[in-house]
Amino acid sequence: MHNLMQDWPLRVGSILDHAARYHANRPVISRSVEGPITRTTWTDIHLGARRCTQALRRLGVQPGDVVGVMAWNTARHLEVWYGVPGAGAVLHTLNPRLFAEQMTYVINHAGDSVLMVDPDLVPIIEGIADRLEKIRHIIVLTDRAHMPETTLDMLCYEELVAAEDGDTAWHMGDERDACGICYTSGTTGNPKGVVYTHRSNVIHALSSQSPDMLGLGAADTVMPVVPLFHANGWSIGYTAPLAGASIVMPGRDMTPPAIYEMLEQGVTLTAAVPTVWLGLLGWLRENPEKRFSTLKRVVIGGSSCPRAVIETFQDTYGVQVLHAWGMTEMSPLGTVCSFKPEVAALPDDKRLDVQETVGHPPYTVELKITDDAGNRLPEDGAAQGRLWCRGPAIVGEYLHMGEKAHDADGWFDTGDVATIDPNGYVRITDRSKDVIKSGGEWISSIDLENVAVGHPDVAEAAAIGVPHPKWDERPVLVVVPTPGTEPDKQAILDLVATRFAKWQVPDDVLFVEELPHTATGKISKLTLRQQLNERGYALPA
Amino acid sequence: MHNLMQDWPLRVGSILDHAARYHANRPVISRSVEGPITRTTWTDIHLGARRCTQALRRLGVQPGDVVGVMAWNTARHLEVWYGVPGAGAVLHTLNPRLFAEQMTYVINHAGDSVLMVDPDLVPIIEGIADRLEKIRHIIVLTDRAHMPETTLDMLCYEELVAAEDGDTAWHMGDERDACGICYTSGTTGNPKGVVYTHRSNVIHALSSQSPDMLGLGAADTVMPVVPLFHANGWSIGYTAPLAGASIVMPGRDMTPPAIYEMLEQGVTLTAAVPTVWLGLLGWLRENPEKRFSTLKRVVIGGSSCPRAVIETFQDTYGVQVLHAWGMTEMSPLGTVCSFKPEVAALPDDKRLDVQETVGHPPYTVELKITDDAGNRLPEDGAAQGRLWCRGPAIVGEYLHMGEKAHDADGWFDTGDVATIDPNGYVRITDRSKDVIKSGGEWISSIDLENVAVGHPDVAEAAAIGVPHPKWDERPVLVVVPTPGTEPDKQAILDLVATRFAKWQVPDDVLFVEELPHTATGKISKLTLRQQLNERGYALPA
Ligand SMILES: Nc1ncnc2c1ncn2[C@@H]1O[C@H](COP(=O)(O)O)[C@@H](O)[C@H]1O
Repeated sequence: MHNLMQDWPLRVGSILDHAARYHANRPVISRSVEGPITRTTWTDIHLGARRCTQALRRLGVQPGDVVGVMAWNTARHLEVWYGVPGAGAVLHTLNPRLFAEQMTYVINHAGDSVLMVDPDLVPIIEGIADRLEKIRHIIVLTDRAHMPETTLDMLCYEELVAAEDGDTAWHMGDERDACGICYTSGTTGNPKGVVYTHRSNVIHALSSQSPDMLGLGAADTVMPVVPLFHANGWSIGYTAPLAGASIVMPGRDMTPPAIYEMLEQGVTLTAAVPTVWLGLLGWLRENPEKRFSTLKRVVIGGSSCPRAVIETFQDTYGVQVLHAWGMTEMSPLGTVCSFKPEVAALPDDKRLDVQETVGHPPYTVELKITDDAGNRLPEDGAAQGRLWCRGPAIVGEYLHMGEKAHDADGWFDTGDVATIDPNGYVRITDRSKDVIKSGGEWISSIDLENVAVGHPDVAEAAAIGVPHPKWDERPVLVVVPTPGTEPDKQAILDLVATRFAKWQVPDDVLFVEELPHTATGKISKLTLRQQLNERGYALPA
Repeated sequence: MHNLMQDWPLRVGSILDHAARYHANRPVISRSVEGPITRTTWTDIHLGARRCTQALRRLGVQPGDVVGVMAWNTARHLEVWYGVPGAGAVLHTLNPRLFAEQMTYVINHAGDSVLMVDPDLVPIIEGIADRLEKIRHIIVLTDRAHMPETTLDMLCYEELVAAEDGDTAWHMGDERDACGICYTSGTTGNPKGVVYTHRSNVIHALSSQSPDMLGLGAADTVMPVVPLFHANGWSIGYTAPLAGASIVMPGRDMTPPAIYEMLEQGVTLTAAVPTVWLGLLGWLRENPEKRFSTLKRVVIGGSSCPRAVIETFQDTYGVQVLHAWGMTEMSPLGTVCSFKPEVAALPDDKRLDVQETVGHPPYTVELKITDDAGNRLPEDGAAQGRLWCRGPAIVGEYLHMGEKAHDADGWFDTGDVATIDPNGYVRITDRSKDVIKSGGEWISSIDLENVAVGHPDVAEAAAIGVPHPKWDERPVLVVVPTPGTEPDKQAILDLVATRFAKWQVPDDVLFVEELPHTATGKISKLTLRQQLNERGYALPA
């Protein structure tokens, strides 16, 4: 009586097949690397992807080979997104902002044998080419006319695919075959490779298009501002065609007017980290005549979203914010802050409070919080603990690590610290290595930062724990002033004191010109602590 | 590099776990078999299901055992829906309307060793008890006070579960393990058993909650009027908790006032076959003060939905109709007629034309049409052909048949005849065995019937092909008159002639008091043709 339904493996190629057949004419709009905004369809992407598959095969790419892709969000990147796994190969997304060291490491560690690179990123490869161990081909993602000058031997993507007719089938195999690789932006040690399978990507896309997650349907036009090389591109490269949605690919230009121009191509849902939206909202404030003509919802994740951003989107622009949390290891979606009936029924300001949480998980994501000893903590919205997760699209084992990334019961430690309330809304209060432990209690660095950036003179803030003989650690705020202001230390602390208990208020505020960031734009507290150490910082007496 | 994501099998128990944790307070409202309307939550169902699992284990039920369940749509049935597979057993839904012969056959064929039965259905079991081969226990789904008088040895469900504390874990196993069995209501030969796996039910639920399918979210309250024993209960027993929706279970009473009363419990989405809605709309016409206070969408499938039903729901009641098609073998969803942008943009009457199609498939359902020789036909909205499907929630092999139910490429012949238009909208024109072949051309019996029932004097109509020496077959309409009318043959044919070519208009109209139906409420054309044969019917000269 076992296994009497059809054997239909969950492979990503079938997602694009579906879009090409059933959502054939839905627009795919893209800012190209060559400059112009192009307009094609899922059918065109499907054809392009199959030609890409054929071209890779002709170059000798075998199932299981790893192809590194360093590219902006464009229609061509979508072709490659399906063309590489279509050949049974594994698409390794490369973040161009990695340091040369790390870039070399991840390309060699994953065993990339082919690289596909946007023309403006060729210099990055040139800089490390002599250290790359297995690369057999480098393909530049453009046409002959736009091929950059280079000392290396490089192939032209459009020439390669022009020689193919697209009349081929995707490589078929087990649904647990590797489909993509994305390295974590580890602040300590070497980056670690997460290997998505066809199965995990399909299940994740099915979950994330749910009405209470992204809620993506054929009537939507989605724009992933988040790069495809960040955390599986938040899976939108899969979710959009699965849902039959239109897609707008914003290309490389991340300036507010460029993003605005692309949003005005009919976008209804978009997604990016808070910094992008801070920039856009700032620009909009200076250009009050600009409004969104089609935008309805914006997904904000990757780091904590300031309340002011949520308020401005909703109150000034009528755009609903979906605060979300996830990580590379989770494919990446963990939670989305959509409104359950209990929350929808709240008065506006209480609902806004809830929107500062990252929301609740879909089916396929299990969560729990524990104390340091691993004991489960109550999900009462108050108890803070280490956040663990479990599910079919969560890392089982990092590449070449040879050991499980989770405990015996399957739980993966996210490295985040959180509360969970009775309705399942998660509040991320810290990274476990950034949590400030004072007098046996935990103080949330994220909460401190969120309140601090509410001060008009504070552009960016980081709260860290500084060793203290009696209290173990005491919080200190490190602040980047808003350009043209000279913030007053006490005023900032007074603001914090309105929302925190006395013992939680930082002992000091330091002003710096710049905070250290990781390649994915997060504040690197490790580096920050080192910097304070190096300059011999001491707490005020 | 293979299989580096977590091993998290897709098992239905995790769906209920999700609902109980993250949608704990969402109401489960049910008309009980004891009479009153009860109000519980997913958390209560979760507890009840685990107690049911424990009770079954205590009775000796082993993983892989088959438990037959004959019950109306109630909260208790939901407990059992998860409690049976929770013990690793297989839930075999029994349609109480089966003839004793068929009932005996399916219980023995599936190897049911335990039966769970609603109290009013006990007589059905009594009538066949001596022919049941493997039954070890019969459990009546009620409390001690409502146990029926019976000559058989029967256990009381509420007593069994009262002895358990719910502190247990679901049986874990492979996701391709059997989870449920539903027999097709074959009009020829013995019914055939479709064995749903945990995996197929989970994937199907993920697909069917998609925004463009049922579009089910936590803000919805869904009422499956379609019984859980029809075609996997249209999967709503899985989709609702997966989506975190509230559920209303209407119980046994299918009279219009009873259904209306349950719809008024806050239902936003409901689902049933056209007959149910014809009855309800008729009653509403006589009770013009009744309106729907919360209902927004109604899924109509199982057989072709008359245009008038769609129009009345939408124009009179502001309730959107989602015409749907599926079958037991497909878990059951095949297509849903939601509006893609191309359709949303149409003028009202053109959009209504599209709503007479059954819509388009979700990702996970592949479709094609072929001629009798198996050649693929164009999907141009005109070519009619046999409809084939493929997907992870489609039957691979019927129970104990020992051979694939699909061809070498995985395609399953649905037995339906259809057109598919360029946007992927499917129009079911016939069952392949009911298609009327006249002069080498196919005439759609469903289209003929749909036009005929547009005549006010026609309550129900069936079009069948009657052998003809020259044309092979000629269409004949068999009509049940609206009570109190004496329909005019020519008037009906004239109406048909307004929508059909001359050669497609039936040669005759016969009037009958009643049409033969299958256990799932479909007209049995096989029986009808036999009846005409027996009474020596001959075409008019
Ligand atoms: N919307 C519909 N229009 C026409 N026929 C339908 C529709 N939905 C289901 N059916 C028929 O019902 C059959 C499935 O029956 P069952 O397996 O009993 O659910 C399909 O193969 C179709 O022939």
